[in-house]
Amino acid sequence: MENTKNASLRIMYLNPVGFSSLDQVFADMAKEYKEEGTEVHITSLNPSVGQMNNLEYRTFESFIHLDTLKAVRQASLEGFDAIIIGCFYDPVIEDAREIAGDMVVLGPCEASCQVAVRIANNFSVLIGRRKWYNQMNETIKRYGYGEKIASFRELSMTVPEFVANPSCTKEEIIKQAKIAVEEDKAECIILGCTCEIGHYKEVQEIIGVPVIDPSIAALKTAESAAGLKKISGWGTSKKWGLEPPSEEDLKAFGILQEPYVFGNRIIVN
Amino acid sequence: MENTKNASLRIMYLNPVGFSSLDQVFADMAKEYKEEGTEVHITSLNPSVGQMNNLEYRTFESFIHLDTLKAVRQASLEGFDAIIIGCFYDPVIEDAREIAGDMVVLGPCEASCQVAVRIANNFSVLIGRRKWYNQMNETIKRYGYGEKIASFRELSMTVPEFVANPSCTKEEIIKQAKIAVEEDKAECIILGCTCEIGHYKEVQEIIGVPVIDPSIAALKTAESAAGLKKISGWGTSKKWGLEPPSEEDLKAFGILQEPYVFGNRIIVN
Amino acid sequence: MENTKNASLRIMYLNPVGFSSLDQVFADMAKEYKEEGTEVHITSLNPSVGQMNNLEYRTFESFIHLDTLKAVRQASLEGFDAIIIGCFYDPVIEDAREIAGDMVVLGPCEASCQVAVRIANNFSVLIGRRKWYNQMNETIKRYGYGEKIASFRELSMTVPEFVANPSCTKEEIIKQAKIAVEEDKAECIILGCTCEIGHYKEVQEIIGVPVIDPSIAALKTAESAAGLKKISGWGTSKKWGLEPPSEEDLKAFGILQEPYVFGNRIIVN
Amino acid sequence: MENTKNASLRIMYLNPVGFSSLDQVFADMAKEYKEEGTEVHITSLNPSVGQMNNLEYRTFESFIHLDTLKAVRQASLEGFDAIIIGCFYDPVIEDAREIAGDMVVLGPCEASCQVAVRIANNFSVLIGRRKWYNQMNETIKRYGYGEKIASFRELSMTVPEFVANPSCTKEEIIKQAKIAVEEDKAECIILGCTCEIGHYKEVQEIIGVPVIDPSIAALKTAESAAGLKKISGWGTSKKWGLEPPSEEDLKAFGILQEPYVFGNRIIVN
Amino acid sequence: MENTKNASLRIMYLNPVGFSSLDQVFADMAKEYKEEGTEVHITSLNPSVGQMNNLEYRTFESFIHLDTLKAVRQASLEGFDAIIIGCFYDPVIEDAREIAGDMVVLGPCEASCQVAVRIANNFSVLIGRRKWYNQMNETIKRYGYGEKIASFRELSMTVPEFVANPSCTKEEIIKQAKIAVEEDKAECIILGCTCEIGHYKEVQEIIGVPVIDPSIAALKTAESAAGLKKISGWGTSKKWGLEPPSEEDLKAFGILQEPYVFGNRIIVN
Amino acid sequence: MENTKNASLRIMYLNPVGFSSLDQVFADMAKEYKEEGTEVHITSLNPSVGQMNNLEYRTFESFIHLDTLKAVRQASLEGFDAIIIGCFYDPVIEDAREIAGDMVVLGPCEASCQVAVRIANNFSVLIGRRKWYNQMNETIKRYGYGEKIASFRELSMTVPEFVANPSCTKEEIIKQAKIAVEEDKAECIILGCTCEIGHYKEVQEIIGVPVIDPSIAALKTAESAAGLKKISGWGTSKKWGLEPPSEEDLKAFGILQEPYVFGNRIIVN
Repeated sequence: MENTKNASLRIMYLNPVGFSSLDQVFADMAKEYKEEGTEVHITSLNPSVGQMNNLEYRTFESFIHLDTLKAVRQASLEGFDAIIIGCFYDPVIEDAREIAGDMVVLGPCEASCQVAVRIANNFSVLIGRRKWYNQMNETIKRYGYGEKIASFRELSMTVPEFVANPSCTKEEIIKQAKIAVEEDKAECIILGCTCEIGHYKEVQEIIGVPVIDPSIAALKTAESAAGLKKISGWGTSKKWGLEPPSEEDLKAFGILQEPYVFGNRIIVN
Repeated sequence: MENTKNASLRIMYLNPVGFSSLDQVFADMAKEYKEEGTEVHITSLNPSVGQMNNLEYRTFESFIHLDTLKAVRQASLEGFDAIIIGCFYDPVIEDAREIAGDMVVLGPCEASCQVAVRIANNFSVLIGRRKWYNQMNETIKRYGYGEKIASFRELSMTVPEFVANPSCTKEEIIKQAKIAVEEDKAECIILGCTCEIGHYKEVQEIIGVPVIDPSIAALKTAESAAGLKKISGWGTSKKWGLEPPSEEDLKAFGILQEPYVFGNRIIVN
Repeated sequence: MENTKNASLRIMYLNPVGFSSLDQVFADMAKEYKEEGTEVHITSLNPSVGQMNNLEYRTFESFIHLDTLKAVRQASLEGFDAIIIGCFYDPVIEDAREIAGDMVVLGPCEASCQVAVRIANNFSVLIGRRKWYNQMNETIKRYGYGEKIASFRELSMTVPEFVANPSCTKEEIIKQAKIAVEEDKAECIILGCTCEIGHYKEVQEIIGVPVIDPSIAALKTAESAAGLKKISGWGTSKKWGLEPPSEEDLKAFGILQEPYVFGNRIIVN
Repeated sequence: MENTKNASLRIMYLNPVGFSSLDQVFADMAKEYKEEGTEVHITSLNPSVGQMNNLEYRTFESFIHLDTLKAVRQASLEGFDAIIIGCFYDPVIEDAREIAGDMVVLGPCEASCQVAVRIANNFSVLIGRRKWYNQMNETIKRYGYGEKIASFRELSMTVPEFVANPSCTKEEIIKQAKIAVEEDKAECIILGCTCEIGHYKEVQEIIGVPVIDPSIAALKTAESAAGLKKISGWGTSKKWGLEPPSEEDLKAFGILQEPYVFGNRIIVN
Repeated sequence: MENTKNASLRIMYLNPVGFSSLDQVFADMAKEYKEEGTEVHITSLNPSVGQMNNLEYRTFESFIHLDTLKAVRQASLEGFDAIIIGCFYDPVIEDAREIAGDMVVLGPCEASCQVAVRIANNFSVLIGRRKWYNQMNETIKRYGYGEKIASFRELSMTVPEFVANPSCTKEEIIKQAKIAVEEDKAECIILGCTCEIGHYKEVQEIIGVPVIDPSIAALKTAESAAGLKKISGWGTSKKWGLEPPSEEDLKAFGILQEPYVFGNRIIVN
Repeated sequence: MENTKNASLRIMYLNPVGFSSLDQVFADMAKEYKEEGTEVHITSLNPSVGQMNNLEYRTFESFIHLDTLKAVRQASLEGFDAIIIGCFYDPVIEDAREIAGDMVVLGPCEASCQVAVRIANNFSVLIGRRKWYNQMNETIKRYGYGEKIASFRELSMTVPEFVANPSCTKEEIIKQAKIAVEEDKAECIILGCTCEIGHYKEVQEIIGVPVIDPSIAALKTAESAAGLKKISGWGTSKKWGLEPPSEEDLKAFGILQEPYVFGNRIIVN
């Protein structure tokens, strides 16, 4: 029996913010972490969504909502095995699953939680600002991991500040991770923003508990899920709550009839 | 002391589907049910959202997501006291609250639940198809009313079928409401779609328990909430999870800078 | 079509403590906040219940339990559309709903929570003493709002102290509300006692988040609920858990056969 | 060391319905099941509470509420170690604990649940009518045993019918217990009314799982709790939520100043 | 009618740690607290399990797992009415109930919780080290008492340190109990380790709320449960989740065919 | 940069039942599903645990408890990256994580749930007999997926019957899966026993929703987790609840000092 398996998995890592300047960072991450046979497309949205440099507000998310859905549909039509919506809010994830065909749809938050609960009884999430707490907490509770939350801790920084000042970001991560472990008794840390990228290893060394980087968790979980879809047919269910609209309706309503034009696409082999 | 109070409340009832053919139905309802001093604007979205004749799928919701947000922003700028997003999924409600200023944002589902729990220990929700269950159930649990759900019962009809065939709809409502009361032990019935409009009174008479029409529940709750906002200043909080983006950011990102053009507007005095 | 609607709603605001000295305060509130057409009767219990100046203890509640039920029955027989049991513990509310006919029964706690969750993701409750916490927390959890509680904060004052020293009360409210917002991350404050009346507006101005006064929340919610009962027939369900005892049984057991004699009644038109 | 322990425990079994005709039945049960050294007083309320022959309705409970509290206070002053409020609704139990001094207060429902969860993973409760479900379910959830409920099953009989027709009652218990075990997968049965007395043993024999009689569960749990109070000092806490009102206040308010006059008292040695 | 009842109950108190040096301490406790007619056998495991001086780690529990099961089986075959597995983790309790016949199986944690919730709205658990928290918290939540937990507080001591230094243990208990009551608002304290034996009375005197010793709670609950099993037949259910393996299978698999040899047995009459 | 990544991952698939006859079946599965670079060792326990042909009873689990722990320890010492305890009860998983070093420990139940919730809103679990329900349901709730359970459905077969009669097993799976989808509204099916191996693909084809085979889910999740441990250092946390006993204590207590002797080992490259 030939052993192909995960070879030639195709995964899209969609950057759902309204700009593409971080795409290369995620491409580098993908290059470093993906399996040999996996092809990863780092894409970002059409710039018509607006020039948001963060998705910290639900308002900004609303601006990328439809394009994200269209991008997911496009990826599905292009035959991708899995797509990652690369923001820790896991935006549009439920809508995306409906239109994804059997392609698997993943978010960094859900993936990080799945990694964490396999290796720890609880976790703390390090977020930028209290603003984020309500939505992320609701999301994690919806996933079923509410009882696993040791705490949310804030770095008191915005996403643009993460990007602009990585060394300050790392310092704050270390500081809050220590508090999370010592005071909140966290057994594991999840970095609650894909833009906290690049720090987990160093922090982990210092703190002494696993520190989950959400982009990497998402990529590797996507690879696993994509493989299972391919070999075992475990793609997104299309039944009951996940039943998609009919193609006839889409046509009649004049929606999802055009290919989606991504703003950027970096292919990592 | 002058007794003005709710006089001159201004409420927008937004029909978030991609067509305006039902607007008059909701306008008639508003005419019949609103207080004398209240001004209700029945609006629908710009037709550019697509010609959906229902929001049964998350995909369709994604198409009206941003326009709904823009409409909420517009209503807020026009000085409305409250807005109703007139679909039982309560779509976009959390995002809308962020950008609404202190205007109150309401959904028919939340309003119906609030009415129901004041007069009954539990309720059943009559939905069109099983498809709807997952999302509505999650929404009601998020609101805190999960333990009050006696059951969901399906009419096995689509929204267009509700609209096309009211008498069949009424019959099915009666049939499922009876089952809900007798088998699921519901003390109250909620009609789980604004398009089940026009039937509650007759059904209620037959069934013998309160049957909540979601549009009316939303309108009257909105009047109450709008009044409290006006007299007592109890408008939408702007703190923590509800903190809005700054006007500077909106401008910098090129979003929400233009007035929203509604597809239709009926003013009911 | 004639536009009568809420005109001539009749609401009773029952002061369930064993004295009537605050009745005028609540009457003044009603005068200021009620709609024009609404008639509000501020009543208090027959002094035979005891001369309690607070209901901070379950023991005291036991002394007003039966008279409150009788008062509710009486209001129902007098044709009131809604009754408010004016204590934040929402005492006797479940029993009252059973005997209320289709009159709506409301408590300030439930009403305040309903107002709060429409405009905020969470709330803190400002109570007098830790003593109150257990019962109020259980009540709010029973209503389904347990996950919305940011915190309870204590003013370290008794009800008689609230009444005797309003300026000190206000100061304490401001102090604890600040802590609730800043430390407990509350998006909204609920004053957890009807005797904290008169302070919400000033506090709200200072704190910058909505501060819910429970009496006003109850009155305005009662007006809305009474209207819905009148126009739409959405009165208290009489099915299953809300099934009332038969009039035959009441007669046979010699109970609820006499009109209830209120201790005081102020009519506000 | 002298081995006195539970010897001379004093327990009151209060029949909180408005009549004493079943007191002898409970006295016989106590005689049969109590430990040698225990003294049990079977008491019933002063007939002034009304001539209710059941507590199936919250309304009827309201009529016995205050007298039950007074009876508890009286028992405490008479030096009883524990009191049972002998109705499966566990009425007034929380209020009673506040005024009980360190005497232990127990209800048949709580006691039955405690017995059941020690010997089974779940249980079904056999009630008379659906009417009872809502309140009992809420009570059991409040105790923490919500997840242990396999089902409620109704005998479709009233309390007076239980009393009037024991053989029919037994037949119905057997029928519903079988359904509870076979269909609802109950591992244990709780009889959800003290008036289902006298049947458990026979039913248990037939059904093959433990069938808990609530009066016996309450009596034996009370003996255990009373013993622990006496030997170990584990009486009802008086802290925080259980803080009692001061004797000064009771006096000032003119309440609880007179000894309570029971309607009936049978002493079982 | 002869009044035998609990007379001649036979209870085993199994010390599941790998040594017997504390057996006499528990025997003395049993002597002091048991009813006259009760026979208590203090047993410990066969030393082949390992020489653990604590069960603070799941690893150590694994070493006593099978022997504990065998001991339970043995006790059942010897006709004991109830067995206590004397460690606050309540180890092996669910497995034990399966093989126990109708003998009742109890753990100090479950028994302590049952005692506590009868006399207080909540409780704090005083544990040795944070290590213990996760497992004990999960256990208490599984029992249904999760909402009753005011807090866990740590003495920062190991079990061997409890044993080696009782006066220091007592001091730490007092210190943490005070914090639990004053800061965490506990109405009751549970000592979260059977090796905190000997201190509860003094601490209780000082702290002013009930302080539950888990060994005593277990012994007295076992007596009550054993009595109910004997008089009322309320032994461990054998249905559904509690269905035991067949004796044929045990024989075929070569397991549980030999009598278990205890390491130690002290009989207390 | 060299792209090694998951190459040379080492995973142990431990068959925790007391016999090795199915080891080859799991080895064949591993051969078919593993990545090229992964080395999988299929092991079974030392036959001294007993000759159980199933783990349907907690009693049988108790017999493999310690050996499973020892096997995990052994795997950790041999440098495995991950171990699967190959029974759907996920036995010993929490204890194993404590002693596993940073090796990842997985169970088929947890892995199956993680796969399912990424592609469906809910799932049904097909078990052999009702006996299994209680424990598995508790486990899934502990993981956080309780709200995702659509139903448990029973095949009414024992594990030996699964093994002896695969075609009957498949038929029963199809029958119950259909009921789960159509009546319980499951969007996904999980086969609740590793011995239901070999059927998922055919069933899935017929049923039309994903049918998760637990062994495959476990193997592929283990590969992903092992990879993350190797590249990112996300091995099992050793903090707080996961703190392992000291090597000194192990030595002092005379436990875990000898290498574990597996009953069988098949190496799959």
